[in-house]
Amino acid sequence: MSDALTFEIHTRLDGALARTGTITTPHGTIETPAFIPVGTKATLKSLTPEQLEGVGAQAVLANAYHLYLRPGSDILDQAGGLNAFMNWNKPTFTDSGGFQVMSLGVGFKKVIDMDGSVSEKPLTKKERLAWIDNEGVTFKSHLDGSKHRFTPEVSMQIQHQIGADITFAFDELTTLHDSYEYQVESLNERTHPWAERSLAEHKRLNIERSHRPPQALFGVVQGANYEDLRRECSRFLGAMDFDGFGLGGALAKKNIGEIVSWMCEELPEDKPRHMLGISEPDDIFACIENGADTFDCVSPARVGRNGALYTRDGRRNITNAKYRNDFTPFDSECDCYTCLHYTSAYLHHLFKSDELLSNTLATIHNERFIIKLVDDIRASIADASFYTFKQSFLDRYYAK
Amino acid sequence: MSDALTFEIHTRLDGALARTGTITTPHGTIETPAFIPVGTKATLKSLTPEQLEGVGAQAVLANAYHLYLRPGSDILDQAGGLNAFMNWNKPTFTDSGGFQVMSLGVGFKKVIDMDGSVSEKPLTKKERLAWIDNEGVTFKSHLDGSKHRFTPEVSMQIQHQIGADITFAFDELTTLHDSYEYQVESLNERTHPWAERSLAEHKRLNIERSHRPPQALFGVVQGANYEDLRRECSRFLGAMDFDGFGLGGALAKKNIGEIVSWMCEELPEDKPRHMLGISEPDDIFACIENGADTFDCVSPARVGRNGALYTRDGRRNITNAKYRNDFTPFDSECDCYTCLHYTSAYLHHLFKSDELLSNTLATIHNERFIIKLVDDIRASIADASFYTFKQSFLDRYYAK
Repeated sequence: MSDALTFEIHTRLDGALARTGTITTPHGTIETPAFIPVGTKATLKSLTPEQLEGVGAQAVLANAYHLYLRPGSDILDQAGGLNAFMNWNKPTFTDSGGFQVMSLGVGFKKVIDMDGSVSEKPLTKKERLAWIDNEGVTFKSHLDGSKHRFTPEVSMQIQHQIGADITFAFDELTTLHDSYEYQVESLNERTHPWAERSLAEHKRLNIERSHRPPQALFGVVQGANYEDLRRECSRFLGAMDFDGFGLGGALAKKNIGEIVSWMCEELPEDKPRHMLGISEPDDIFACIENGADTFDCVSPARVGRNGALYTRDGRRNITNAKYRNDFTPFDSECDCYTCLHYTSAYLHHLFKSDELLSNTLATIHNERFIIKLVDDIRASIADASFYTFKQSFLDRYYAK
Repeated sequence: MSDALTFEIHTRLDGALARTGTITTPHGTIETPAFIPVGTKATLKSLTPEQLEGVGAQAVLANAYHLYLRPGSDILDQAGGLNAFMNWNKPTFTDSGGFQVMSLGVGFKKVIDMDGSVSEKPLTKKERLAWIDNEGVTFKSHLDGSKHRFTPEVSMQIQHQIGADITFAFDELTTLHDSYEYQVESLNERTHPWAERSLAEHKRLNIERSHRPPQALFGVVQGANYEDLRRECSRFLGAMDFDGFGLGGALAKKNIGEIVSWMCEELPEDKPRHMLGISEPDDIFACIENGADTFDCVSPARVGRNGALYTRDGRRNITNAKYRNDFTPFDSECDCYTCLHYTSAYLHHLFKSDELLSNTLATIHNERFIIKLVDDIRASIADASFYTFKQSFLDRYYAK
């Protein structure tokens, strides 16, 4: 662990891998478990930083790939880093860009903009936008088709220019459709050596750029749905000098908790673990129970902008006609700005009229809902009521 | 004057019709002259009410036509009125809907959504969406083509359901292309009798709906560019029991100040005058100098969303490449949230990336700029520095 990050564990849940803790970074602390909203392009869409703070966000995660292409990571560097650029004074994360550059082209057309919908569709050779070799990835920009190349070193240089508190090692994104043999080759030829190269370049940059706050680096565990590969990768990365770990790549929802447990049983216990791209309540409970400390996901904001709002009884669509003359708060159990100040009828009107304020009010509600859920889970670990809370929450949320 | 509104004049400018004053309504006061932002559909687009208050807005103006069609003025009534519906606790205005229903169809295709661009283009008979007779206007909804009819009575019933503090009488919108004979007929057959009918219905509704705060009614002066008609209409309406007056209809920019003076010389001095649809700095100075007290316009928000931001040196487009790496505030003389917390480089990035926050930050800046300009004009009347301030502001703003 470097001087960029410390992690203190407060409580452990009996018979499980869940724990509460505090991550300390140069821009402040994160009480874990914590949900981290995504601000892909150094902005959480319709929210100001003050509104984001108002929903209880302890940190934000931005995407290196997007910021590299626009405005350019050099611009963020000149601005004094991500915090100064976007007027956010709490901790920040960036991902490595690996997910974005590879999802463009390795046979599957996945999400490009993290805010778009995820689809998997085989690409023809002509449509391919990324080519992987053991040194790195060459890809075409989704903005203008221009050619670029990311290597572990380039990813770290970009992430240091952006200047987030917590960065991620460059890894290869595999999919559940890749063969076991491909997964083995990917770990041995790319994800493991790339982790070593990322760490070396990161350490060099922390020294070279000592005028800036030190940054932390998380290694990212891959291995898809294979227990032996997940455990092997966790041991390999766990032996290295990372500040924490990303739990990454493809995993099947049906046994997500089990897969997380394979990794967390092997990883060093005293370092934080970040789960990439998770926000469904059942997944959140499963991942925390099995040792994940932080999460990020675009989904609460994205589905909110489409009118799908969380309630304790599951997601509801505010454009439903029954809300037209419902003059009560959308969720009377919610403490967010939206539910405290507006009725369902007003939200319904904003959505039916395509008014910009609909994005703001829906995003505030959904981010608050998920952040508060994770806050409540944290409290339930601290007072040993986790299993009771989990049962009652999930029974009601997923009741038919 | 009714118990719905009082107007106190504080200072008069020597040799001109300009004055400072205070309008008092059931939802608070407005220090005049004042710029009133437009929240067409009971929302100022990308801003929360708190952000709107933060830019110094003293009141908002909503459009009866839009709210009648969606969500329906009955919904606003059930919600407890416009203030409760949109979570705004300061004074409110609604226009009569006349501008919108008539601009749809009397031979000119003008703005339908107040946020669209204004164009004048003769319509064919088939394209027509509105038909005027001496009793009212029949029109088709721009949303679904359904047929509706507004009369002075209907307009007042809608405006009372919406429940704004200040409402406007239903009048006929004429254009500069209409003949003198048509303007005379319009005043005598429609605008004058409709003012009488609006006032009678308004008084009846204030009594019938005494469970709600009393509302004020402004008569709207028409007469296009004709001095005799503007003066005659002002005297006619001025003799009636209105709480104030709207300075409405078509007028040529080149002699806007003169036309305002014709009206304000005839109107009772002790009642407030609202100028509809004005926000250009030179127009604002001309109208205030000649007796207008309040203004509304969608333009600051609309042009802001397109990246055109006001400065003391005129409007600048933030998407200009020179702002890409400009790490200073966009307007170092501005005290708005945007200029105090963000650089031009960040705003440029948000606009180039089509990020939602661009709307919020640009709207905050532009609304603040125009509100502060009118606040500064108010102060310059109070301390008799109006002419000096006007000269220095306009010289710099319009310098080539």
